[in-house]
Amino acid sequence: MTLIWPLTHIFGIVLMGFSGLMSTALAVSFLAEDGATAAFLNGTLATFTLGLLMFGSTMHVKKEVRARAGFLLVALTWSLLPAFGAIPLVLQLPGLSFTDAYFEAMSGLTTTGATLLSGLDAMPASINLWRHELNWIAGMGIIVFAVAILPILGVGGMQLYKAETPGATKESSLPPRIAQTAKALWVVYAGYTVVCILCLKLAGMNWLDAVCHAFAAMSLGGFSTHDANVGYFDSVSIEVILTVFQLAAGINFATHFVAVRKLTTAPYARDPEAKSFLLLVLGSCLLAAGVLWNQGVYPDYWTALRYASFNLVTIATDCGFANADFGQWPILVPLWMLFLSCISTSSGSTGGGIRMIRTIILVKQSLREFHLLIHPQSVTPLKIGENIIGNKVVMSVLGFIFLYFISVVSLTFVLMFQGLDFVTAFTAVIACINNAGPGLGQVGPAGNYSVLTDYETWVLSFTMLLGRVQIFSVLILFVPEFWRK
Amino acid sequence: MTLIWPLTHIFGIVLMGFSGLMSTALAVSFLAEDGATAAFLNGTLATFTLGLLMFGSTMHVKKEVRARAGFLLVALTWSLLPAFGAIPLVLQLPGLSFTDAYFEAMSGLTTTGATLLSGLDAMPASINLWRHELNWIAGMGIIVFAVAILPILGVGGMQLYKAETPGATKESSLPPRIAQTAKALWVVYAGYTVVCILCLKLAGMNWLDAVCHAFAAMSLGGFSTHDANVGYFDSVSIEVILTVFQLAAGINFATHFVAVRKLTTAPYARDPEAKSFLLLVLGSCLLAAGVLWNQGVYPDYWTALRYASFNLVTIATDCGFANADFGQWPILVPLWMLFLSCISTSSGSTGGGIRMIRTIILVKQSLREFHLLIHPQSVTPLKIGENIIGNKVVMSVLGFIFLYFISVVSLTFVLMFQGLDFVTAFTAVIACINNAGPGLGQVGPAGNYSVLTDYETWVLSFTMLLGRVQIFSVLILFVPEFWRK
Ligand SMILES: [K+]
Ligand SMILES: [K+]
Repeated sequence: MTLIWPLTHIFGIVLMGFSGLMSTALAVSFLAEDGATAAFLNGTLATFTLGLLMFGSTMHVKKEVRARAGFLLVALTWSLLPAFGAIPLVLQLPGLSFTDAYFEAMSGLTTTGATLLSGLDAMPASINLWRHELNWIAGMGIIVFAVAILPILGVGGMQLYKAETPGATKESSLPPRIAQTAKALWVVYAGYTVVCILCLKLAGMNWLDAVCHAFAAMSLGGFSTHDANVGYFDSVSIEVILTVFQLAAGINFATHFVAVRKLTTAPYARDPEAKSFLLLVLGSCLLAAGVLWNQGVYPDYWTALRYASFNLVTIATDCGFANADFGQWPILVPLWMLFLSCISTSSGSTGGGIRMIRTIILVKQSLREFHLLIHPQSVTPLKIGENIIGNKVVMSVLGFIFLYFISVVSLTFVLMFQGLDFVTAFTAVIACINNAGPGLGQVGPAGNYSVLTDYETWVLSFTMLLGRVQIFSVLILFVPEFWRK
Repeated sequence: MTLIWPLTHIFGIVLMGFSGLMSTALAVSFLAEDGATAAFLNGTLATFTLGLLMFGSTMHVKKEVRARAGFLLVALTWSLLPAFGAIPLVLQLPGLSFTDAYFEAMSGLTTTGATLLSGLDAMPASINLWRHELNWIAGMGIIVFAVAILPILGVGGMQLYKAETPGATKESSLPPRIAQTAKALWVVYAGYTVVCILCLKLAGMNWLDAVCHAFAAMSLGGFSTHDANVGYFDSVSIEVILTVFQLAAGINFATHFVAVRKLTTAPYARDPEAKSFLLLVLGSCLLAAGVLWNQGVYPDYWTALRYASFNLVTIATDCGFANADFGQWPILVPLWMLFLSCISTSSGSTGGGIRMIRTIILVKQSLREFHLLIHPQSVTPLKIGENIIGNKVVMSVLGFIFLYFISVVSLTFVLMFQGLDFVTAFTAVIACINNAGPGLGQVGPAGNYSVLTDYETWVLSFTMLLGRVQIFSVLILFVPEFWRK
């Protein structure tokens, strides 16, 4: 296949860049003398060398890749990179199998934040930093993937956003404008991250914790440097800061970009996703706090509101921090949180799941069906704000949501095959396909993915990947037609 | 509203007919001297009198009703009739509340077959017969509803079948041809029932059991005259007979009609639903038996196949008999059975759930999305056999399936509100919305719906109704637009 050489070339560049990222953890390890220097040195060198070989040996091939190859590149990058990200973990943590290290790295690079490590508090600083760097760099990847690549590939209705990247034409090579768009969004992303780091430092974190948790919040990754997660700090101000930045990260970065450039909040009001997202999530916080208070989980409404808000926002945005074992709450609340994690975050954010734009289209389409039953002859287009959404997009969206449901159902069955209980299997799949993090049962906020067998770990690694690349981009590789000329 | 008088008139006729049905149970009670005569006499008289009053007082109103009123008639009939069906139960069984009696009658009239009675073996013969008559008459109602009414109302893509009832025009009064179609289908339904009764009698049942179980099998209602359900008989031949007739009842009766009239099996081969249904269900039996045998639930493959087949077929067809406590099996198998109960049965059968035609359209639409991703410019219609399915129908179908999922999710939350556990709540909703019968957890085949609170019982009565009238037909009544001129 003629695709193999251009893809090798591009992946070589990705690997060299990735080794550059790894070298920052190497530098921290060297400066902090935390004992992980050898692991990072070997990892960085191996990754860089392989990248250089792949890049160098394919210097003279034609670089132009058609849009279809984008699927392959995305799937390849997101499934191979975790193997390289796992190198320092395997070298530094002797008890850790490759399966588990790959899961941890995949969890980082998909911003899932599900961990199977424990003893995080005593880990070398560089190892924790590396996990959070995986989160943060993945956030960047996700933004450019969502804003620039998905609309061109037309995955699950995302051709909606094609207008936002002028110059993109179907089946042509990627347009130069993408690089420009990506850069603008990254500036916003990096800027927010810096502000978040400073806020967390001011609220009392040390520099390492501040950097790591800002990385985890902005990428909605949800890794922590402590086994007790954010509960370790037991600080309302830290929780408020993280909540605000998680909510920000759950909004389309293109909206942030316009708002920041024009220094106005008007773009948020015009963004139909942002409005629904904030209303739904904040309304749910008030209600959930009411339930927890009413059921006597917390003695007063304000304490209930503190824990309900932090945990609900972090799950609904697919970040996945925790400051309480919400697995012990009346099951209604955590299930509602998991449901929100499926539908809430915006396209172009670092969150996961179905995305709010598709939720809106789904709701409007259902209402339209009722209208059609009452007035069978009428022709009513589906509108969001001023924009008319064509039937082709609506069907793409519905197709995506189905594939999502079918994936959840089948992967739950696949997990239960080895005898995993239903609640753990189902919520683990939901938490991984949404790239949220903690589920319920054995993989709840007080539990840990390390209880799973190797088989289950691989299934969930695949589930995280599937969710991250919006399902179609992986499954399409299994369609024979894809491989035909 | 001018609708009220014609609807009163029609419902008066329905009530008088219903009292006629009740009088057969009265006759049996009288002949068998089973002690329930007074209950049925009072029930029959009350129902008939009210029906006559409603009918008589509205003799002179204009009878023509527009198609839109069909929604109201369907919802009214199916929600009020159980109140009348409950009368003999309340009068005869002193401990039974109206809530529970209404649930039992709704369960009968939606062919759900979920029961909250126990001590069935010692019940008066006429009470058991009455429960099964509710099943059987509902089966008739469902067939005419599915074949004649739904295509005209255009619910959830069922306008697909409009061609089958020529003469039906949108928004006009119901065409005379419907009566003719319905009669033909009922002859087939009644004929199959008679054959089933004879087979069951030959296999060793007494007449009452044979009639009741044939009624329950052909209507896919699943009531039994024994607390141990079909396990009471412990007879392979009875299980085989019931399996065959349940599979038959899961196929479109229009297909049966053509097959019977032409004395050929060709129509089954041409029916895309029948083929997929039989392949999926019978293939699942073989696999499920393998799992049960492999996990050591049964000592040999044949015993495993016996129990797997009977219980899987009965749940997949939404009948809901049982001859084993499948709640104790490895959870994979009963969950797969519940999944099949959502998608397997044919339109125009007496089964419930999403229906196979919609499953097929969903699968084909998903495949079409992949095709469109690979060839964005292509125009590929969705075809089933030779027929092209228009986008409007596809979107109706997708809309239906969503509403189905949303209903399952919301009703599960509503049930859990009073603290019902997740597995019981979720599987009870699935079992009731599919009109299948037993769920898992507390409402499993060894359990009983009597453990539920009044609140939960009413929620599930509504769930059964919602599933039976294909969701849209009830929910549309809550759309303000419906009530506008
Ligand atoms: K996450
Ligand atoms: K049933």
